[in-house]
Amino acid sequence: MRAAVYNAPFDVSLGERPDPIIQQPGDAIVRVTATCVCGSDLWYYRGESKRKHGGPIGHEFVGVVEEVGADVTTVKVGDFVIAPFMWSDGTCPHCRYGITSSCVHGGFWATQGADGGQGEYVRVAEANGTLVVVPGGVPDARLIPSLLALSDVCGTGHHAAVGAGVVAGSTVAVVGDGAVGLCGVLAARRLGAERIISLSRNPARQVIATQFGATDIVSARGDDAVAEVLELTDGVGVDATLECVGTGQAFTTAFAIARPGSRVGFVGVPHGVEVPIQTAFGSNIGLGGGLAPVRAYLPELLTDVLSGAINPGLVFDYEFELADIGEAYKAMDERRAIKAIARL
Amino acid sequence: MRAAVYNAPFDVSLGERPDPIIQQPGDAIVRVTATCVCGSDLWYYRGESKRKHGGPIGHEFVGVVEEVGADVTTVKVGDFVIAPFMWSDGTCPHCRYGITSSCVHGGFWATQGADGGQGEYVRVAEANGTLVVVPGGVPDARLIPSLLALSDVCGTGHHAAVGAGVVAGSTVAVVGDGAVGLCGVLAARRLGAERIISLSRNPARQVIATQFGATDIVSARGDDAVAEVLELTDGVGVDATLECVGTGQAFTTAFAIARPGSRVGFVGVPHGVEVPIQTAFGSNIGLGGGLAPVRAYLPELLTDVLSGAINPGLVFDYEFELADIGEAYKAMDERRAIKAIARL
Repeated sequence: MRAAVYNAPFDVSLGERPDPIIQQPGDAIVRVTATCVCGSDLWYYRGESKRKHGGPIGHEFVGVVEEVGADVTTVKVGDFVIAPFMWSDGTCPHCRYGITSSCVHGGFWATQGADGGQGEYVRVAEANGTLVVVPGGVPDARLIPSLLALSDVCGTGHHAAVGAGVVAGSTVAVVGDGAVGLCGVLAARRLGAERIISLSRNPARQVIATQFGATDIVSARGDDAVAEVLELTDGVGVDATLECVGTGQAFTTAFAIARPGSRVGFVGVPHGVEVPIQTAFGSNIGLGGGLAPVRAYLPELLTDVLSGAINPGLVFDYEFELADIGEAYKAMDERRAIKAIARL
Repeated sequence: MRAAVYNAPFDVSLGERPDPIIQQPGDAIVRVTATCVCGSDLWYYRGESKRKHGGPIGHEFVGVVEEVGADVTTVKVGDFVIAPFMWSDGTCPHCRYGITSSCVHGGFWATQGADGGQGEYVRVAEANGTLVVVPGGVPDARLIPSLLALSDVCGTGHHAAVGAGVVAGSTVAVVGDGAVGLCGVLAARRLGAERIISLSRNPARQVIATQFGATDIVSARGDDAVAEVLELTDGVGVDATLECVGTGQAFTTAFAIARPGSRVGFVGVPHGVEVPIQTAFGSNIGLGGGLAPVRAYLPELLTDVLSGAINPGLVFDYEFELADIGEAYKAMDERRAIKAIARL
């Protein structure tokens, strides 16, 4: 099959990989009909995190079930399914606690011999726990971006909002205007936040943030951004802060705008991050979030996508052919694209 | 008046300080009838945190209102009152949000020219917001330890439990067997925890932990303690972890025994602490707590003390005369005393 390959930093291309086959009775084979590039893919693309050269990549996909193992009961051949960015069995203590990302039998696509999401087919381990069926067969093409967003960014943004403790009436700030940050705005709105301050300096992203429910845009950075958010909140700070970047600077900003007694919800893979523990202590600013248990949130978010209540697919502003995957990474790296989608 | 003075590390003695007078219309003068030494006093006692030599000390006291300023309406002369370990106005945005420890007009006893709690009298700023009246006049002497515990350790232990997200049915671990850790056990029990694992290697403290509701005692430390707690929880970890020490080692232990998706509630002044951010991220272990807003919790905890539902005063195992304050610090420092109380 054709599948994206990570050759080296700044070098991704379409290559050939073996067609997947059922290996375990719990496996399913999914024919991918849409996949995308994630902001977190940029960590290895830029050489900032290590990754084996020559291996598969990608962790977001939707598609049609082609074949199932003997133990698979929750999906059948022909079902249109969403795969969260990790597989999980749905039955272990962590899954039952809602933390599917810590599943004792779980794992990441494109690691441990698994296929990557950026390819034609994926063998899905633990299919019963992992895959979520979209009712009604193959959906309208216009719905695909929002369904694909449920694979990662929509659920991850939601997790930031949950981790930050957003409730009805909250004043919220979202640090980061990538696809996850924008989905964080959407999630905060969905949870009833009254005021949502998006920290974004990119006009195209500001537009989406506003479409998703941002009431205020702060385009400054660092100390200036902090001053502006504090001014917007009468010096108090916000009730809930979504940290959707994962860098030290974003953490510093997040803790500086969080009101005493509030929480920072973080979902960006942390790179060079130190929790300002004295601020956290003195001002009672908590930390929530982490690697999003997207699978756990999928059913409720899918319901809202299907009803039209939310449209997270708006984060996709760049469409590409799988053969041009290298160019899609480049566009994301150069921030010419918010999020790049390929339909197969 | 007679009041304790911090002369230098390992040197505390009873000295003379000016009698306090009403300075602001919101002030009250309290005649202290009981005070105590806190585990956090040991940071400066041991020279591990800086403190002005020759100044007052102590931040926990109960007593009788002797005089009030013109604006004081919530307490009157003759009332028996509990003072939380900070003063706060009760009306600023942070106080109204429940974070009295971030009061914009708040402060710490024995700083900024304020009297210390370890002395005969204290001028209480923001008396309306700060002091809590014990109904019925001067209480029975047997009740005094529990009322004094409400000044700090009982509310601080409660804050750890709240920060860790203890709910009915939780399996809880408490790291630290100082007075705050013991009160954390008490708080977890009060909030309905089903199983409470106390990490304590001191037999006397184990007894109190058990009296307060601990169902399991783990006397190992470090990796061995982690292994034991994981074994007690079928490898899952605990639903809520109370970190009641404030050292790096205690944090490491706390994050290692917390189950994915749970929170560590921390209330010990952090010294040399680094949040293990990759563990926090990968396992979704949140951080809650901080400098306890004891004033906010005082009414509900006082109700339970007066009804006899809780008896936090059991943490006092050492009684001293104010003249012997130096010896009381020494006993705490050498861990001969869990917590030392003086009645005046």
